[in-house]
Amino acid sequence: MDQTVPLQDVPHQHVVFADGMMLDCGVTLPSLTVAYRTYGSLNPVRSNAVLVCHALTGDQYVAEPHPLTGKNGWWDAVVGPGKPVDTDRFFVICANVLGGCMGSTGPRSARGDGDDVWGIDFPPVTIRDMVRAQKRLIEHLGIGRLFAAIGGSMGGMQVLQWAADYPEAVFAALPIATASYHSAQNIAFNEVGRQAIFADPDWRGGRYREAGTTPARGLAVARMCAHITYLSEQALARKFGRRLQGAPKTADEAMSLFGDMFEVESYLHHQGSTFVRRFDANSYLTITRAMDYFDLVADHGGDLAAAFRGTKTRFMLASFSSDWLFPTEESRTVARALNRAGANVSFVEIESDKGHDAFLLDEPDFHRTLAGFLAGCAVHAGL
Amino acid sequence: MDQTVPLQDVPHQHVVFADGMMLDCGVTLPSLTVAYRTYGSLNPVRSNAVLVCHALTGDQYVAEPHPLTGKNGWWDAVVGPGKPVDTDRFFVICANVLGGCMGSTGPRSARGDGDDVWGIDFPPVTIRDMVRAQKRLIEHLGIGRLFAAIGGSMGGMQVLQWAADYPEAVFAALPIATASYHSAQNIAFNEVGRQAIFADPDWRGGRYREAGTTPARGLAVARMCAHITYLSEQALARKFGRRLQGAPKTADEAMSLFGDMFEVESYLHHQGSTFVRRFDANSYLTITRAMDYFDLVADHGGDLAAAFRGTKTRFMLASFSSDWLFPTEESRTVARALNRAGANVSFVEIESDKGHDAFLLDEPDFHRTLAGFLAGCAVHAGL
Repeated sequence: MDQTVPLQDVPHQHVVFADGMMLDCGVTLPSLTVAYRTYGSLNPVRSNAVLVCHALTGDQYVAEPHPLTGKNGWWDAVVGPGKPVDTDRFFVICANVLGGCMGSTGPRSARGDGDDVWGIDFPPVTIRDMVRAQKRLIEHLGIGRLFAAIGGSMGGMQVLQWAADYPEAVFAALPIATASYHSAQNIAFNEVGRQAIFADPDWRGGRYREAGTTPARGLAVARMCAHITYLSEQALARKFGRRLQGAPKTADEAMSLFGDMFEVESYLHHQGSTFVRRFDANSYLTITRAMDYFDLVADHGGDLAAAFRGTKTRFMLASFSSDWLFPTEESRTVARALNRAGANVSFVEIESDKGHDAFLLDEPDFHRTLAGFLAGCAVHAGL
Repeated sequence: MDQTVPLQDVPHQHVVFADGMMLDCGVTLPSLTVAYRTYGSLNPVRSNAVLVCHALTGDQYVAEPHPLTGKNGWWDAVVGPGKPVDTDRFFVICANVLGGCMGSTGPRSARGDGDDVWGIDFPPVTIRDMVRAQKRLIEHLGIGRLFAAIGGSMGGMQVLQWAADYPEAVFAALPIATASYHSAQNIAFNEVGRQAIFADPDWRGGRYREAGTTPARGLAVARMCAHITYLSEQALARKFGRRLQGAPKTADEAMSLFGDMFEVESYLHHQGSTFVRRFDANSYLTITRAMDYFDLVADHGGDLAAAFRGTKTRFMLASFSSDWLFPTEESRTVARALNRAGANVSFVEIESDKGHDAFLLDEPDFHRTLAGFLAGCAVHAGL
């Protein structure tokens, strides 16, 4: 189902921290809003909270229909009653990341009291800033320690940051399909997306809101490019192969030059056009940049183990065999560092031909591993 | 060295076939121009000709400084006196592909007698059409049989097409880092590039020449995206890693948001901006489409072996271990089909961490294999 509600008209459950927050870049946000959703119930001793951290283009609508698109929650396969992250048992929290566009403070937020929004002037944020904002939310909810923090891709970066910065506040950490730093190849793909946005004249140097425009074409190209990296070659071959799909329907599609277009092209066009209706270009720039600058190794003097020395957090890492955006080797590097740090680590590579997206999809082995690990941790935590 | 000569002012050695050529799409080009370069000397019996087929953004300037950029020939490492394709011994020919922008008939060519150029109305061409144009050139040069046809990437597609369509005219065929059809992932990456061009308002629906514009930003984004696929993750990590390169210099670079930019970003920007000065956007669309439609398997009823049954051509296939655009498996599929067809095949996977670009670079194992294979063929050919 396509979007029926304009981006700006959706109210989001949120909390406002009127004292603001200082960012890593040195700028202080005068006020901090964190939009979030919860599922399940917090137990009386507040020990069953699970924080879900979302990826680049995700948001807080984890396990319920999305208010803009009407689509199922992005992790419906994993979070819900009786599911691996069981909302009958756990109190699940997910916050829109700082810099996002679903209600948390970001480029679309008011800069002061007036109508003026941050836009392109929104200060650069880091993954650590995102985690700091989540920590404020967790404290606001009266939770001293999370039973678990879990997330894939950029969500996994946040989980690693949580475990490094607030080890006492995370009983179990589950960084999925992620890495301790963004690779040169990943930076390069992000940069192509950013350049596509910059190349769109409707971007107006980031002041598109003032100009009454939207850099939809540039943002769509960025999304299309990124989307290829989320899938494996095998998945693309299986889903689309070289199948054609008849005559073009729109002027753009007519540019396929040969009259026909490949199904994979139509699929990418759809990914691009639906994305731009639910996402803000300046948020895309802000968040991709936060990912690019994530480097837990450099942050700890070149030794990732130093980030976790003495930690009591229990870790479960998972990677997917056909994920070439965050390959298994990058998870293995994290696992090795955790081992050197003397941490309690479980690491599994899930066989899948679905690429990076596998963490979002129906992957029974992954879901069984997840459920088993959380059950074991629950015993240790006395839940 | 950057370009000093504008694209339109460079004269190219060429031959005109005034009777034109019929294309696979059914359109007849009223006149066909093939721009080409040769190196070395044709022997009296005309048996020492080697046709080099270039890749998507290559051209006929194989082994000499490029007239626009002043840079060395794109295959200087392989073609020249005493080199694997030895111009002291062989007569090397390379033609700009049909649809290209270095002098052969393409979107930049005159449509008739007047000033009017084809532009976006240039008919779609296939790899087979490109090969058909090369065949005309070869006949024009008085050569009945090529000693060898060699090329990497899209050049390899042409070599396969030559071997399939004109087996008697090719003694040895060397398709390098290529495939028998373009994969869904490759089509997807090409489509992102095309969409980036379409999204550039200076593209003007392809009529940018008439409008006096150039879709430079869109074409640069297309090039940046494609360029990532030419390199391996390891090569990017080794060349750039996560190194920063100081303060931004231009307005665009200032968009790096954090003040600093990564070296890999600067490198991509450079690739994009130099490319647009030597390449035509409509040619890029035409040639990427020809690649996408290349499917020698479908052309032969789903059995690649049928393309080569009874062939006497000697084949050498080479792939590179870190090439993820044309992975080894795709060359292996061709090798198996050639085996089923009873052909004489040698196949080698070269260990390299340089990705697809390895076929252009200093790869001693590859060069030794190439020289050895050609020497062996020369004996068999009585050269």
